[in-house]
Amino acid sequence: MKAKTPEESRTIMTDMVLPSETNPLNNLFGGELLARMDRAASIAARRHSRRIVVTASVNHVAFNRAVPLGSVVTVEAKVSRAFKTSMEIFIDVWIEDRESGDRTKANEAIYTFVAVDETGLPTRVPEVLPQTEIEKERHAAALRRKQLSLVLAGKLRPEDATELKALFFH
Amino acid sequence: MKAKTPEESRTIMTDMVLPSETNPLNNLFGGELLARMDRAASIAARRHSRRIVVTASVNHVAFNRAVPLGSVVTVEAKVSRAFKTSMEIFIDVWIEDRESGDRTKANEAIYTFVAVDETGLPTRVPEVLPQTEIEKERHAAALRRKQLSLVLAGKLRPEDATELKALFFH
Amino acid sequence: MKAKTPEESRTIMTDMVLPSETNPLNNLFGGELLARMDRAASIAARRHSRRIVVTASVNHVAFNRAVPLGSVVTVEAKVSRAFKTSMEIFIDVWIEDRESGDRTKANEAIYTFVAVDETGLPTRVPEVLPQTEIEKERHAAALRRKQLSLVLAGKLRPEDATELKALFFH
Amino acid sequence: MKAKTPEESRTIMTDMVLPSETNPLNNLFGGELLARMDRAASIAARRHSRRIVVTASVNHVAFNRAVPLGSVVTVEAKVSRAFKTSMEIFIDVWIEDRESGDRTKANEAIYTFVAVDETGLPTRVPEVLPQTEIEKERHAAALRRKQLSLVLAGKLRPEDATELKALFFH
Amino acid sequence: MKAKTPEESRTIMTDMVLPSETNPLNNLFGGELLARMDRAASIAARRHSRRIVVTASVNHVAFNRAVPLGSVVTVEAKVSRAFKTSMEIFIDVWIEDRESGDRTKANEAIYTFVAVDETGLPTRVPEVLPQTEIEKERHAAALRRKQLSLVLAGKLRPEDATELKALFFH
Amino acid sequence: MKAKTPEESRTIMTDMVLPSETNPLNNLFGGELLARMDRAASIAARRHSRRIVVTASVNHVAFNRAVPLGSVVTVEAKVSRAFKTSMEIFIDVWIEDRESGDRTKANEAIYTFVAVDETGLPTRVPEVLPQTEIEKERHAAALRRKQLSLVLAGKLRPEDATELKALFFH
Repeated sequence: MKAKTPEESRTIMTDMVLPSETNPLNNLFGGELLARMDRAASIAARRHSRRIVVTASVNHVAFNRAVPLGSVVTVEAKVSRAFKTSMEIFIDVWIEDRESGDRTKANEAIYTFVAVDETGLPTRVPEVLPQTEIEKERHAAALRRKQLSLVLAGKLRPEDATELKALFFH
Repeated sequence: MKAKTPEESRTIMTDMVLPSETNPLNNLFGGELLARMDRAASIAARRHSRRIVVTASVNHVAFNRAVPLGSVVTVEAKVSRAFKTSMEIFIDVWIEDRESGDRTKANEAIYTFVAVDETGLPTRVPEVLPQTEIEKERHAAALRRKQLSLVLAGKLRPEDATELKALFFH
Repeated sequence: MKAKTPEESRTIMTDMVLPSETNPLNNLFGGELLARMDRAASIAARRHSRRIVVTASVNHVAFNRAVPLGSVVTVEAKVSRAFKTSMEIFIDVWIEDRESGDRTKANEAIYTFVAVDETGLPTRVPEVLPQTEIEKERHAAALRRKQLSLVLAGKLRPEDATELKALFFH
Repeated sequence: MKAKTPEESRTIMTDMVLPSETNPLNNLFGGELLARMDRAASIAARRHSRRIVVTASVNHVAFNRAVPLGSVVTVEAKVSRAFKTSMEIFIDVWIEDRESGDRTKANEAIYTFVAVDETGLPTRVPEVLPQTEIEKERHAAALRRKQLSLVLAGKLRPEDATELKALFFH
Repeated sequence: MKAKTPEESRTIMTDMVLPSETNPLNNLFGGELLARMDRAASIAARRHSRRIVVTASVNHVAFNRAVPLGSVVTVEAKVSRAFKTSMEIFIDVWIEDRESGDRTKANEAIYTFVAVDETGLPTRVPEVLPQTEIEKERHAAALRRKQLSLVLAGKLRPEDATELKALFFH
Repeated sequence: MKAKTPEESRTIMTDMVLPSETNPLNNLFGGELLARMDRAASIAARRHSRRIVVTASVNHVAFNRAVPLGSVVTVEAKVSRAFKTSMEIFIDVWIEDRESGDRTKANEAIYTFVAVDETGLPTRVPEVLPQTEIEKERHAAALRRKQLSLVLAGKLRPEDATELKALFFH
């Protein structure tokens, strides 16, 4: 199974914010953004694995910036690291100012997908070969996130989570 | 500002899974469930604070159980703890078998909302007085989650996150 | 077939009113409310019968109170009485004021559903055992409504509609 | 205010049944049909009154015929009678067989709308002048329905509902 | 296979413009109008052919008139000419003023559909017998449009497009 | 007003085909694809002009390839040429095979948008500087299309449409 670069799974979903997706302050509902990111991430995971994919988890997401009605939103998803049958997808969300054309970061999120066969059973996926600086950084951090998620799920003893412990004793 | 019980903010959203919300395996998209949970949680946060509320973050969510097309899904949200201007909402998701009537847990998730005034500025919210065993447990755990989120955001030094460190050295 | 209480079928559907569901006065379309009530009622009927259910009829519904954009609407449905293969579902609709937290009745409606098997043929359903005062009242009234509907459909002679005639000669 | 014929308000809404509108038997949800009829009826009421209109009530509706996925559904609405500020709209629903081209009646329903000004206050509407046999019949029956609705609402004593009593003593 | 008149396929789709379909100037998105016209045209093509139909092409469409939020829009589609397995559908779009009741033309468009069998293979359709002046005119023009489309697709030599050349050398 | 390259307006909209967008053969409705292309094109036009933009016209579009349910569809839009206040946008549509990863062209289309100010009046837009071979070709062809559209609208005499006549007398 040939490894792939994050670029090969890169998925771009640019679209507008419509009135039916906004809250009383006329900003995009957090939940709608989570749904858009899920769709973009699932396409990236499918491009990497060429399999049916299902959402396994979404990491902590912070909503630091409101996305107003009428905005053009770009959701960009790339597979950052693959484990046996699962893939971590890193998602960047950008909004752009119509008049200046400036593009600013609105959000980022990390989803995990599992590749499955037609009966729903997990199946192996290719490895990820990060190329750029940021891809390498995200590839490395993916391991720490994996460990944290295993610890929180009680499937890894905290003292064995080598990468993670570094966070607390640097 | 009078404290409230989690029961006072309890929000129940029962609905079916429709074909336009399902993936190629005929299960509910993870992203659609995230969007439903966001709507239920925002109503619970609004009931607790009586303010306009906006999604601040969603905690790590694992999707352990598929939710098939045609299922009846119940999303139940309660405020588990309040901080100065923010509220943690704990969400339980149930699906039920039509023939046996059995109800099984499909998911749980934790969202944080901020209460704002008409101009979007954060504003104070009442405290939460947990009543039942599970409400008390979730109220206590909310503090650990708050610390983890501050550590990850670089706003709290790991060694000051007393509650959290216990996780690693019990 | 064991009889059930109305409580066992109780279905609560709380959700917001979104811009795509409102008329030029910024109030929820009557038709949208009818559709939400149908979904909630069908879940209650399914919980009571554990069968596939299809809408058989909706009783006269009056829209006395506008439901403004941004409202939190709670639709609550319970089976009020069962006939051989059909069920009457009583639906109460509440809206709540964000600032005061007050809950006021916005509507009520009565739907009838039929339980069917996989081929679409009507199939028997359990009886309903009303418990509270209001459940008993609605259970009794369901019989009068059944008779009125049979008279209007020409399937019962008015002089045999004992319960109904009382309405005109008390 | 010049009287109008039912023909002047006639509204035709032909459209397909899509997957997101169907129940587990692949038939149109009753509630979706109620919503379509409400939209068609509101346009007929608006054409008659040239005012903003809001749904006041929907009469008893029976669903006698399933409307399968992929059907072409024609909803036809005409104002059948006008009262001071309200209008009764009679709605016929047809489905057609693709291969034979045959058109069969799937449903009928009766909605009442009120005309309002920009502030939401009821305002007068023109009278209706029925032309065809069926229009005259529906125009006459509208009065009986009005009386029944007043009796049920406790706003008319049953013994004064002359038109209605005839139903029980013919 | 018996020829049919355009009247036999006439399809009327009257509906409102909702907030989720409008651009930042509060007018109906061009793309939404294209989608509505496609649905109406496909029903007209299906009525003419009594077959499954698929969109083959849409002719040049100009959007000369904005369609504001809240408008009542009537899309009217009729088959204008049939070729072996394809049909040209002519679509007129009207909007009406609520207060005056005046109806003005907002758009027109021409779609081509192909009739197919259950496996997706093209299948013959009846001829069209135009009756009114405008139907005859559109029937004649359909041939010129067919030729232009063949020339542009490189399937007909310009010098053989007799009808079309007249456009340039009258 | 500084000229821009087509690359600067490039807009990519990748998304899945959902059940509610498909016809009885389980392929994407032509009208839904037209609506997606309109949204992508409007974003490209907005990026080029930094103005509010409205759809002015869509050129002849042929649907040569079905787009099945579950497909990943990529709509890519770039401004190909600007006239005084209008822009031609060229749109390429791709679908990809999940298993092989192969990407094939499913459609192309050409939309024209007009830039307007807040009151809806047309306003000037920057010129387009094509860079690649295909961009130059499309830029040149845009002039012929503009002339054809002017001839068909009766706003240019055929004998003055220099670019267009070449089509018929090469």
